[in-house]
Amino acid sequence: MSDLRIAVLGVGMMGADHVARITSRISGARVSVVNDYLPEKAAEVAAAVPGARVANDPFDAIAADDVDAVLLATPGPTHEKQLLACLEHRKPVLCEKPLTTEVETSLEVVRREAELEKPLIQVGFMRRFDPEYQHLKALIDGGELGQPLVMHCAHRNPAVPPSFNSAMVVKDSLVHEVDVTRFLFGEEIASVQIIRPAANPSAPAGLQGPQIAIFQTASGRHVDVELFVTTGVAYEVRTEVVGELGSATIGLDVGLVRKSSPGIWGGRITPGFRERFGTAYDIELQRWVDAVRTGVNVDGPTAWDGYAAAAVCAAGVRSLESGERVAVELAERVDA
Amino acid sequence: MSDLRIAVLGVGMMGADHVARITSRISGARVSVVNDYLPEKAAEVAAAVPGARVANDPFDAIAADDVDAVLLATPGPTHEKQLLACLEHRKPVLCEKPLTTEVETSLEVVRREAELEKPLIQVGFMRRFDPEYQHLKALIDGGELGQPLVMHCAHRNPAVPPSFNSAMVVKDSLVHEVDVTRFLFGEEIASVQIIRPAANPSAPAGLQGPQIAIFQTASGRHVDVELFVTTGVAYEVRTEVVGELGSATIGLDVGLVRKSSPGIWGGRITPGFRERFGTAYDIELQRWVDAVRTGVNVDGPTAWDGYAAAAVCAAGVRSLESGERVAVELAERVDA
Amino acid sequence: MSDLRIAVLGVGMMGADHVARITSRISGARVSVVNDYLPEKAAEVAAAVPGARVANDPFDAIAADDVDAVLLATPGPTHEKQLLACLEHRKPVLCEKPLTTEVETSLEVVRREAELEKPLIQVGFMRRFDPEYQHLKALIDGGELGQPLVMHCAHRNPAVPPSFNSAMVVKDSLVHEVDVTRFLFGEEIASVQIIRPAANPSAPAGLQGPQIAIFQTASGRHVDVELFVTTGVAYEVRTEVVGELGSATIGLDVGLVRKSSPGIWGGRITPGFRERFGTAYDIELQRWVDAVRTGVNVDGPTAWDGYAAAAVCAAGVRSLESGERVAVELAERVDA
Amino acid sequence: MSDLRIAVLGVGMMGADHVARITSRISGARVSVVNDYLPEKAAEVAAAVPGARVANDPFDAIAADDVDAVLLATPGPTHEKQLLACLEHRKPVLCEKPLTTEVETSLEVVRREAELEKPLIQVGFMRRFDPEYQHLKALIDGGELGQPLVMHCAHRNPAVPPSFNSAMVVKDSLVHEVDVTRFLFGEEIASVQIIRPAANPSAPAGLQGPQIAIFQTASGRHVDVELFVTTGVAYEVRTEVVGELGSATIGLDVGLVRKSSPGIWGGRITPGFRERFGTAYDIELQRWVDAVRTGVNVDGPTAWDGYAAAAVCAAGVRSLESGERVAVELAERVDA
Repeated sequence: MSDLRIAVLGVGMMGADHVARITSRISGARVSVVNDYLPEKAAEVAAAVPGARVANDPFDAIAADDVDAVLLATPGPTHEKQLLACLEHRKPVLCEKPLTTEVETSLEVVRREAELEKPLIQVGFMRRFDPEYQHLKALIDGGELGQPLVMHCAHRNPAVPPSFNSAMVVKDSLVHEVDVTRFLFGEEIASVQIIRPAANPSAPAGLQGPQIAIFQTASGRHVDVELFVTTGVAYEVRTEVVGELGSATIGLDVGLVRKSSPGIWGGRITPGFRERFGTAYDIELQRWVDAVRTGVNVDGPTAWDGYAAAAVCAAGVRSLESGERVAVELAERVDA
Repeated sequence: MSDLRIAVLGVGMMGADHVARITSRISGARVSVVNDYLPEKAAEVAAAVPGARVANDPFDAIAADDVDAVLLATPGPTHEKQLLACLEHRKPVLCEKPLTTEVETSLEVVRREAELEKPLIQVGFMRRFDPEYQHLKALIDGGELGQPLVMHCAHRNPAVPPSFNSAMVVKDSLVHEVDVTRFLFGEEIASVQIIRPAANPSAPAGLQGPQIAIFQTASGRHVDVELFVTTGVAYEVRTEVVGELGSATIGLDVGLVRKSSPGIWGGRITPGFRERFGTAYDIELQRWVDAVRTGVNVDGPTAWDGYAAAAVCAAGVRSLESGERVAVELAERVDA
Repeated sequence: MSDLRIAVLGVGMMGADHVARITSRISGARVSVVNDYLPEKAAEVAAAVPGARVANDPFDAIAADDVDAVLLATPGPTHEKQLLACLEHRKPVLCEKPLTTEVETSLEVVRREAELEKPLIQVGFMRRFDPEYQHLKALIDGGELGQPLVMHCAHRNPAVPPSFNSAMVVKDSLVHEVDVTRFLFGEEIASVQIIRPAANPSAPAGLQGPQIAIFQTASGRHVDVELFVTTGVAYEVRTEVVGELGSATIGLDVGLVRKSSPGIWGGRITPGFRERFGTAYDIELQRWVDAVRTGVNVDGPTAWDGYAAAAVCAAGVRSLESGERVAVELAERVDA
Repeated sequence: MSDLRIAVLGVGMMGADHVARITSRISGARVSVVNDYLPEKAAEVAAAVPGARVANDPFDAIAADDVDAVLLATPGPTHEKQLLACLEHRKPVLCEKPLTTEVETSLEVVRREAELEKPLIQVGFMRRFDPEYQHLKALIDGGELGQPLVMHCAHRNPAVPPSFNSAMVVKDSLVHEVDVTRFLFGEEIASVQIIRPAANPSAPAGLQGPQIAIFQTASGRHVDVELFVTTGVAYEVRTEVVGELGSATIGLDVGLVRKSSPGIWGGRITPGFRERFGTAYDIELQRWVDAVRTGVNVDGPTAWDGYAAAAVCAAGVRSLESGERVAVELAERVDA
């Protein structure tokens, strides 16, 4: 079986990481086409990949004969049209979050995909492929915690770029916990509330932090999430599920443990998402490649998962503005 | 200096523990009088303490010449009158929580004490004497976490007696986190919200659990508390403070670590509050005895601390009923 | 029952600690007589203890009518005669290690005690009263580790006084692991080897460190001990028992766990033996007081335990000199 | 650049793992030839690898035109001749331990390689590629522990195959710690002693376990290793380095931490070497492939490292028999 030929659209930080990943760590696939809205960036990336060419137009890339599948790492606002083009040309696509930037367009993408004979879209919620989340999921599904009741999450970044704003805390950070909640609990989120505590004096102007998000799921379960993206300390993503028969925690920082002057013991804190989730990205991509090559349906997050996340985040942004609990309203479920 | 002669009023579980503590682990004090509303219980306890006698009436005990100080472990509804009697006879009193059962009567006790030349009341918030909380407090006060921003607490009991109800989760369990918040952050709590998630199917009928409490402090800091008193697992009281410069957690279960079949490593979970806070009770009592004997003002929780806790818990019970955020209104500060 | 009146002989660091402990934390006992070879030191300590007097001669103190029991914290070379005086006057004695400084005199003390109607000597191996060692012992005795096979110990001090020398590493530090081995495994040590690795460049001149001690027990079990008394880091006493069905470790440094800049997580290392074993000393002394007052035989380390430790350490010092394994030869067991 | 074509000789457990690894996780390489002394085993493995063929003779495989490099996973006794054939045909070879089974033949291989213009042999000591060992090495080399003084290792397997014997504990298990010692301390091992404690009653007949190995390095550093290959519990490889300025430990079992009935907290113990060192094998192989393809010298363990390990293990087996310390004698260093 020949290698899957992938067009990577958008080669900023995430896209460039994916190109490197496909080229060096993923077997059965290669990057055949590179596109970016900055042509010189696309050229630079393509030059380092044997057999890759540049496409100046993303839609040409999607339609091209030397492209079997598409990896979408372009900015969110361009996703809708590019996803629809992928559906039109029947090209499987791995789409970095968000599915689209608006709830309505996300739902439209879900519906258009559902008209096809098989699903083509996987959304880049890579935590589902992380060994620790997999382990926690297995514990819950195996009934070892009894009925899961409550989940506590912390999402801490050492720092964010200057352009990061309060709503992005919800749409870019909290969106992962939205998917984790839906993945682990297997149900939709019914309401969201964003609490704005007294601000961190060290936070950049205009960025509300920390924020506390509170979800209530369809069956009434409680999830709270501390979102603190300018800790100055480390990247810390921790999840504790409390169930009827016990609790379990992932995301602890342990590894080399050291005791030395001046009187402390400890280890190194995970510095960033690459160290924490690099393996998850590798597994996500390899399993997508394998699924596409063998023609089985992808088993990762679907377009519906992307739509549901968009709907929850939109409600979250409204709650951030009002401070009140906001109900999440989902369209009737559409399956691809 | 001769031993401090203490009357212990109420010798149920807590009171009997205190009698044993004074008799065997506290130096400079002895139990001279035992009172209980069950006379045979008082007689049984007194018989085991050399030099102790029974008093049938709590007010006689408070007034007695062979009583230098009073330890109040009677049911909450009797506290108001007994505390006022202690103030009248100028007897220092260590009062198990609650100060009184109503906010109004708590405030009245505070005001009556303030009329005296020196404070006489210490409330039994023993966590302030626990080495881990002391360590956390020192970290915050030393500025090592920067500005404290958010606190996450978990308060888990393996089980509660059959008489325990939903409001007692607030008044008997949450009350400790009320005091911890005020102790660690050094400010009052401005509002409380109690969230009632989907109930634990294993919980006894009529007991809402888990509950999630959310405090906003006067300066806007956020505190969340998971209250889950029928975990069936262990006694787990954990506190994490997240600050501008880092975070710190206490209440982890570590000690003997063991690796053995079948494939697990771990340790023993703290089974109950005696194992977790026994040392804190010892320190609390010894420091109270020392303060009373030497005539310095007690440095433990004051009557005002008891009043403030009562006010927050009363608001919590209202939130438990309504599900809404309830503002806490405190009288103007009165210092003894 | 009136308080046990204790003569404390020797009020250097350990003796002064014991005086403070008896006076403030132990119930049922008080210090009635203080003796030290520096009379002004004895006077200073006695002045702070209500009801205590100074005795200029240790043998007068042992014989005195106002002394029910003796706590021996004098230098090792004086122990033999003082212990024999205690036996002669039938005074129970808690003797800080070593029992005596020579194997022969230790055995003589054991034999003289055995001629009495009941044992009077307890040796100050306080680790037997430490909750973690008790837990480990219970695990072994309960069969939860199966047959215990191997033990790994680390004994690390941040620093030692200038007078500390290589042989004292064996006699003052290793002696505790000698007793721990005999306590946990319930058998004698058959041979000792001291390995002298390349020296720590930061060690004081004349002090061989680290040292590695290797014991073989009577049944052939292996115990290794790292002795490193100038780590500059912390006080760390760690013990791992490896058994047929699993392993267990005590002496980990965990408590408050903190994550803060610059990129590390961890806790505070135990700074010294007072923090690590303070509770064990309290329990040791309280149980000795209780045993003496009620007339039951002491349940702590016996004179035989002191003798056996002396014999092992003497062999250890010979191995330190020769580098070879040295067999330990014990007299036939004598029980008091 | 076209993929590196690798002949895999020997497709037992390790060899088959390597075939799977090259085929699915390593980029830039593929298996072109499979050989095994059981032809049907070779055929079965080759059938599952696109483009791979069977070679009935290992020497034909080494010489073949469609083979750029060789991975040797055959039994140790065949290594010498196969390595020499690789050298003769100038084929880079990754040789699973041992280099050869005799010290003399190991040295001969080292000398024959040294006559060539560039080194061709890498030995499969994969721990050098493990992230935790790399971290520990960096800590030492960066001077953060000061002078390293002592190392404690534990090497525990849950079980071994029936054919495993006492000498294999030294040659197959201890050999890894031999290389770790040389890697971390950067010097040769000067003497070895194997201590045989009282045996585990659950150990199979004829298998001495646990064993304790003691190394003295050229500069006098002490290393002890607990070798216990029938624990029945888990795969546990732990290393603690104690230095002048502090200590550091790797190989702790932490990940998902769970608290649940009946009263314990903990995590899952690493079940086997695949879980513990799978990533190290991946990295080892990928870096070898990259080095061979680009023509730079391999940076992994060299033939000399294999020879030195053989010499230490041979001394270890002699010590196992005699119980005495055995000096290690190395030929003068030969560099390829």
